[in-house]
Amino acid sequence: MKTAQEYLESLKQLKPKVYLNGEKVDSILKNPVTKTVVDAMAKIYEMAQDPKYENIMTAYSPYINEKINRCLHIFQSVQDLEKRVEMAILTSQVLGTCNYRCPGCDALNALASVTYEMDKKLGTNYNKRFVEYLKWVQKNDLACSGSLTDAKGDRSKRPKEQDPDMYIHVVEKGDDGIVVRGARVHQSGSIAAHEHIILPGITFRKGEEEYAVAFAVPNGTKGLTYICQYTPEDAERLHTEDTYHLGNPIYGVRETCMMIFDDVFIPWERVFMCGEVEFTRHMWSRFARIHRMSCGGACKVGFGDLMIGAAQTMAEYLGVAEAYHIREKIIEMVKINETLHACALAAALKGTEEPEGSGVYLPDRMYSNIAKLNCADGFWKLMALLGDIVGGLAVTMPSEKELKNPDTSEYIKKYLKAAVPAEKRMRMTKFIQNWSAGLHGVGTWHGAGSTQTQRLEIYRTVDLEEKKELAKKLAGIKD
Amino acid sequence: MKTAQEYLESLKQLKPKVYLNGEKVDSILKNPVTKTVVDAMAKIYEMAQDPKYENIMTAYSPYINEKINRCLHIFQSVQDLEKRVEMAILTSQVLGTCNYRCPGCDALNALASVTYEMDKKLGTNYNKRFVEYLKWVQKNDLACSGSLTDAKGDRSKRPKEQDPDMYIHVVEKGDDGIVVRGARVHQSGSIAAHEHIILPGITFRKGEEEYAVAFAVPNGTKGLTYICQYTPEDAERLHTEDTYHLGNPIYGVRETCMMIFDDVFIPWERVFMCGEVEFTRHMWSRFARIHRMSCGGACKVGFGDLMIGAAQTMAEYLGVAEAYHIREKIIEMVKINETLHACALAAALKGTEEPEGSGVYLPDRMYSNIAKLNCADGFWKLMALLGDIVGGLAVTMPSEKELKNPDTSEYIKKYLKAAVPAEKRMRMTKFIQNWSAGLHGVGTWHGAGSTQTQRLEIYRTVDLEEKKELAKKLAGIKD
Amino acid sequence: MKTAQEYLESLKQLKPKVYLNGEKVDSILKNPVTKTVVDAMAKIYEMAQDPKYENIMTAYSPYINEKINRCLHIFQSVQDLEKRVEMAILTSQVLGTCNYRCPGCDALNALASVTYEMDKKLGTNYNKRFVEYLKWVQKNDLACSGSLTDAKGDRSKRPKEQDPDMYIHVVEKGDDGIVVRGARVHQSGSIAAHEHIILPGITFRKGEEEYAVAFAVPNGTKGLTYICQYTPEDAERLHTEDTYHLGNPIYGVRETCMMIFDDVFIPWERVFMCGEVEFTRHMWSRFARIHRMSCGGACKVGFGDLMIGAAQTMAEYLGVAEAYHIREKIIEMVKINETLHACALAAALKGTEEPEGSGVYLPDRMYSNIAKLNCADGFWKLMALLGDIVGGLAVTMPSEKELKNPDTSEYIKKYLKAAVPAEKRMRMTKFIQNWSAGLHGVGTWHGAGSTQTQRLEIYRTVDLEEKKELAKKLAGIKD
Amino acid sequence: MKTAQEYLESLKQLKPKVYLNGEKVDSILKNPVTKTVVDAMAKIYEMAQDPKYENIMTAYSPYINEKINRCLHIFQSVQDLEKRVEMAILTSQVLGTCNYRCPGCDALNALASVTYEMDKKLGTNYNKRFVEYLKWVQKNDLACSGSLTDAKGDRSKRPKEQDPDMYIHVVEKGDDGIVVRGARVHQSGSIAAHEHIILPGITFRKGEEEYAVAFAVPNGTKGLTYICQYTPEDAERLHTEDTYHLGNPIYGVRETCMMIFDDVFIPWERVFMCGEVEFTRHMWSRFARIHRMSCGGACKVGFGDLMIGAAQTMAEYLGVAEAYHIREKIIEMVKINETLHACALAAALKGTEEPEGSGVYLPDRMYSNIAKLNCADGFWKLMALLGDIVGGLAVTMPSEKELKNPDTSEYIKKYLKAAVPAEKRMRMTKFIQNWSAGLHGVGTWHGAGSTQTQRLEIYRTVDLEEKKELAKKLAGIKD
Repeated sequence: MKTAQEYLESLKQLKPKVYLNGEKVDSILKNPVTKTVVDAMAKIYEMAQDPKYENIMTAYSPYINEKINRCLHIFQSVQDLEKRVEMAILTSQVLGTCNYRCPGCDALNALASVTYEMDKKLGTNYNKRFVEYLKWVQKNDLACSGSLTDAKGDRSKRPKEQDPDMYIHVVEKGDDGIVVRGARVHQSGSIAAHEHIILPGITFRKGEEEYAVAFAVPNGTKGLTYICQYTPEDAERLHTEDTYHLGNPIYGVRETCMMIFDDVFIPWERVFMCGEVEFTRHMWSRFARIHRMSCGGACKVGFGDLMIGAAQTMAEYLGVAEAYHIREKIIEMVKINETLHACALAAALKGTEEPEGSGVYLPDRMYSNIAKLNCADGFWKLMALLGDIVGGLAVTMPSEKELKNPDTSEYIKKYLKAAVPAEKRMRMTKFIQNWSAGLHGVGTWHGAGSTQTQRLEIYRTVDLEEKKELAKKLAGIKD
Repeated sequence: MKTAQEYLESLKQLKPKVYLNGEKVDSILKNPVTKTVVDAMAKIYEMAQDPKYENIMTAYSPYINEKINRCLHIFQSVQDLEKRVEMAILTSQVLGTCNYRCPGCDALNALASVTYEMDKKLGTNYNKRFVEYLKWVQKNDLACSGSLTDAKGDRSKRPKEQDPDMYIHVVEKGDDGIVVRGARVHQSGSIAAHEHIILPGITFRKGEEEYAVAFAVPNGTKGLTYICQYTPEDAERLHTEDTYHLGNPIYGVRETCMMIFDDVFIPWERVFMCGEVEFTRHMWSRFARIHRMSCGGACKVGFGDLMIGAAQTMAEYLGVAEAYHIREKIIEMVKINETLHACALAAALKGTEEPEGSGVYLPDRMYSNIAKLNCADGFWKLMALLGDIVGGLAVTMPSEKELKNPDTSEYIKKYLKAAVPAEKRMRMTKFIQNWSAGLHGVGTWHGAGSTQTQRLEIYRTVDLEEKKELAKKLAGIKD
Repeated sequence: MKTAQEYLESLKQLKPKVYLNGEKVDSILKNPVTKTVVDAMAKIYEMAQDPKYENIMTAYSPYINEKINRCLHIFQSVQDLEKRVEMAILTSQVLGTCNYRCPGCDALNALASVTYEMDKKLGTNYNKRFVEYLKWVQKNDLACSGSLTDAKGDRSKRPKEQDPDMYIHVVEKGDDGIVVRGARVHQSGSIAAHEHIILPGITFRKGEEEYAVAFAVPNGTKGLTYICQYTPEDAERLHTEDTYHLGNPIYGVRETCMMIFDDVFIPWERVFMCGEVEFTRHMWSRFARIHRMSCGGACKVGFGDLMIGAAQTMAEYLGVAEAYHIREKIIEMVKINETLHACALAAALKGTEEPEGSGVYLPDRMYSNIAKLNCADGFWKLMALLGDIVGGLAVTMPSEKELKNPDTSEYIKKYLKAAVPAEKRMRMTKFIQNWSAGLHGVGTWHGAGSTQTQRLEIYRTVDLEEKKELAKKLAGIKD
Repeated sequence: MKTAQEYLESLKQLKPKVYLNGEKVDSILKNPVTKTVVDAMAKIYEMAQDPKYENIMTAYSPYINEKINRCLHIFQSVQDLEKRVEMAILTSQVLGTCNYRCPGCDALNALASVTYEMDKKLGTNYNKRFVEYLKWVQKNDLACSGSLTDAKGDRSKRPKEQDPDMYIHVVEKGDDGIVVRGARVHQSGSIAAHEHIILPGITFRKGEEEYAVAFAVPNGTKGLTYICQYTPEDAERLHTEDTYHLGNPIYGVRETCMMIFDDVFIPWERVFMCGEVEFTRHMWSRFARIHRMSCGGACKVGFGDLMIGAAQTMAEYLGVAEAYHIREKIIEMVKINETLHACALAAALKGTEEPEGSGVYLPDRMYSNIAKLNCADGFWKLMALLGDIVGGLAVTMPSEKELKNPDTSEYIKKYLKAAVPAEKRMRMTKFIQNWSAGLHGVGTWHGAGSTQTQRLEIYRTVDLEEKKELAKKLAGIKD
């Protein structure tokens, strides 16, 4: 496995075309915004080397018979699924932002499951290709991003009813490989990943075969352009002298980009689906099943732990930790957070091998969708409760730079002290601003898919006929 | 194990003093209201004999090395806890009301855990006594009720600040045993149980030793009086000619009673705690931990399945099953129900041996409390959603007797038909009335303890210090 | 205006064919269930004579230049609308059940508004007819019920796609009048009203002209049959010796019936719409606009006051009124209730003359729909909060008859006492059972129309174009 | 009345000491952040001159017998209160941020009411002083800010138990006036107001007389220092070249500051309370009563209109406006927003003269507190619903600068187009980011006081005794 240092070295080889705020980014290792992604991903490499975290951050790969970073592991059991949950919680607790590895991990597992099924039912050899690819990334301990969300354009229209490039698709097929075109949005951390795993993001239909495509592509491949998000938090980071004054000093907010595929060539050995529209639903749905567990009931639970910890700290700082209404709000935060956690645990521990014989374990489809659905709503409530406890200062606080401004520092120290000095209170207040007055509500809502997609999956999963029978039987109704 | 018939026979030996609606009940097997309890409990015996349910309804007892009814089983593993969840769901689905065995089962397990710990720490021999007692009930396959809720009186006062009998307590101690006095409320099905398991229901303090008492007492013991609840649903059942016209025709609503202990003698071999106030919290808290899993995340999930099944059936009867807002309401019901289920599964599958060495597995304390807390709120929402779909007829429907009234039957058949004949629609509507316009909201809220008790247990369980450390570390605050 | 006694006398003239629980009701004044309707309606007559209530319960009619019962008043101003709200709150507070006059009042107002518009636009003379009819009911101080809800049958089908009688319609037109057939469900108190006001309940379309019919019909007209609801609460009342033991001793629960129209003749002077499908939307929509204010934001607010009063009383009885979580729940109940109240006040005080020149004031369409929509959800929450505070005894309490049972009365008195004697606690507990463990949730949800109808009316009412312009302007977007 | 230009000119006379991000602000008219405050306040002057808004933005002052800006008006009637609501909605719709005049307006009205009562009960002459002051600000059309929130420090301690300066207090009293010390936080727009109105923010007790102080102080008075908030949004604005790329291009986010009172001299004619601790509750409570109406049910309703308009616009841009779940979300947003509006209207239209004889009308205390309480929760829901509809791009969108970047502009235009060109979609997405992914949730929660303060005011306002009587009477309980 790579050390953090080796990861950073490896990045220097990459030459992605990255743009941010209208300008080219010379070095993603140096730009203050893109650096947060690099640092977060390096931390994951570091944690995998740390004996304290070994049990969670690494796994044993039966494919290469070696210890690997768990982010590259194919789930062999429900215990693996539970560890997957624990890993997401842990990294969220440590980073306070995206670990940038979840979609990649979950996409690899979806591929492991679906390519197996495709080969079995269609006689293709995608799984073999995929396993070769998998061994290679495991051996080389490469960071993989995962990607499903197309540009989409006008959503009332199918792909071919509008600009055909609004969904990634094959524009050319040759002996050596395929050429793809399109764009992906919301790509978390892909600028600093070695590899991108691309899956179809919706169910395509007969006649839309060119859109049914899954593949892997290396960072910086010819034709790829990365255009970064630009948010107020990014602006603040770009223009601060001291990142200690930021809400999450080192790791910042989740950074994403649009990834443009301008006729990118993919050799056949990296193509894992090409035209099999009837399996597109399996692809996104199995990815979603995993990702809604790891996102809704794990990653966000780690964030929730930070928010609860921050709320309690601030309550103590302000001298209100014993007020009954504050205590009730803390309890409410814990209830929400642990409900999400419980859903993820149920998803993991009731997981099943799918398809049978594949050796790949997937979380329970009902509980993983419910984890994410509860999370979307619950996270806004966590934000509101945290924002309640911290007080209005979370949005009205002066800059921590004032602490060094000779004209104002005495005032600030005097009037922003509470049961602790002003410095601590301000630091924790800024930390909380990041959670309760920024990007998290919307980000959490849409991460792993908008709530309506979870609702529909739940409807597809529930067995209403069985429940109807139970009710009729007890009511004494015979059909 | 007893057959249902043997259970019914055994009841004939019992002579409990039972009162209902101001009158003495001659035979609990014949009175239409008490009979529902008997029939439900008989069904549990029947299900334990049914090969179809064997895996869920029976277990292997290491105490007597025999197959036993799972309601008498001491949990040996997390798998046992999961089966406990499945059993509660199953019986709820089949009975549509209380199975009347959960509190007894959960009280036996609490005793198994706490008496072990007491003996270890205090050098008592309660556990030995308990195990002897347990073997006897397992051998004889006896139905045990469980009991924790005292009369309480004025809740702003401690037991000794008011009529001292408001909490069950020891009024006399002798060589052969103790004499207890007090009353228990909300006793589900105890009239038809062979044995009653009595635990302390709150944390008693130094100086309140006489209240720290746990014991078992047979049905109909001298000094015991049972005064049944009387609800509109009971009135309806007492005065109907045809139980087919009732919401839950055979098994009715949950029937409880007050159980009065008017100086009841308990021999020492049936006393499992006597004066150890420092273990009263363990007793109710471990009982609650089990019961909040089996009640909040299992029993009610089985009810929820019936409600979802009824909602979907009714939607189809009315021709609205395809309306998007109906479908969304069904999804919402499933989401709520499966969230509770997930919490119970997490509680079971993350259960632990407690205390170590005891061989007794208890559910995770956080998740079981959260299961119940979510259930309290969620069940009212299920009721509202079901009540929405069924329409106003759930509260305005004429009696099904009109179907046989020559003056009205043609009108009823004509005007209450929908996509199905009026008979079916009326039957299902009445079934739904039972769920959405009756006793369930309040009953579910308070069953296994009111929500504030769960909230406090959550607060006692959560590790806020750990979360504070995580937040401070990321914010860069050093203490 | 009639006295209560005169009202009761007048009822003796009526000979409606009424059925309850499969049997004919000989006298609605004597049957314990139907008597609650009679007593409630008599109370309204009594209150209108009471100087204490004069300001609220009576109004001055410009049609007959006399003081009249406000239930028969056509709103002349926003002050009248506000009094309408106050009247509904007051009668709910006094009766604890339906006053059985709201739909009639609101239907008369809808007719006053829509017939005026029809005459103006179509040259009909419905309004003249209506005013003559109105004067007659005002002069004679008659109790009018109002009716909009048809049997409907299979809701996926239009009226003519199924049994055509599932919606009331004209089956014959003659020189003297029309003959109508169909059935109405959920008819609150119509058995004891002198007159029934029938409006179309949905929007009918071209080709469905026979369904576009509004008229008035006297109680007991040939062809009319009333089939009463039958609920557990009705069963309890039919079979109690002492109504003091019931939740609402005198006035009981809301009693409704199905009203069958088996070819009922209506003379032309009582027909207020006949074939004008394009005005059917106006008819139900304006009725709904009034009724959703008086139901959602007034009637239920009076109930809410009783529930809050009961909750606080019970909290004091149990000695927990000072517990912070109880106080917070009381506050939550008040917040919910006064939010509904505020919506009704906004609906009333922002009311407008509609159509202009008619002299009829209608509540604001947005706020009245919002009042009801908030109420549907809010009332379930009130029930849950009340049910929380009262404790499990609300569903497990023995009969108050035990207080006179020599075998049990001492036990009951001893063990159900709290900070007050058992008698008071039991009385209040039974009162609360009526509110939190019975028919109210479903009844309130569907009264004045199910929530989806309010949602659609809100969508029809809101001016999205205006809001889009505001947003675009500020964002700097030019179309 | 001043024109906007005259207002801007007048600002040049002011020399406030203002700090932002650790640096001195040379000119509040030029600094990009402080300029948004100036521009918003200038817009209020402009609107007051605009005949289109005259009816809402101006009023007739009986004090100076002239037309004045409504922000300086003392409410003479419930109609004035309703106009107050309309004004707040309008300015929010136009500015999309704080109008910076509400607290000042509401503080003047609180002073008008309380000083009248103090003079009457205590024989002081505060009201006379206040009226003279009021005439002067009305005559000169001065912008007044209002202020109640002290630094507070450790909230578990009373003012004298900690650094005594944590609450503003009198440190010296002389013949000419008083000297005050302390600091105020969350001061919206005070940097650009001519006058600051300072009221006590909590209830002070006997022995804390020096804290019971109300007064007016001109901008830039000796001893005053303003330290501005610094948020990510401020950073973004400070460092953008083109404000068109910001969420609210011209008016930005609500800008506040801390206002330090370092021994500021206040002449007696500007002192309106000094030592009367028994009236401190009246002061903050009446201010709150007004401000919770204008904030919770008006200002935020105008924001809500923008959010609904933005949601609908975006739904159309994306081609999903007809999707049922989108429509339902729009309806839900309208329901929430109009519920707040209804509460404010009820507060206004049920307002009363207080105290009698004062000529000052205050909103109903119950409804104004309920308006704010519902708003706190409702606004987070509006944010979530808007964030749902806009999609993840609200937090992952690249900068609009990319539209001019030759390397990326074609990609951006191609892949971010939807049913409209990318420019429009991006503009509206950025506008929505401002609402759903920024400061509004926490700001709205705490503006006009945190929710617990509203809850307590509701508890103080409700008449529980009356409700208990109603319940007992109907239950048949005699005390």
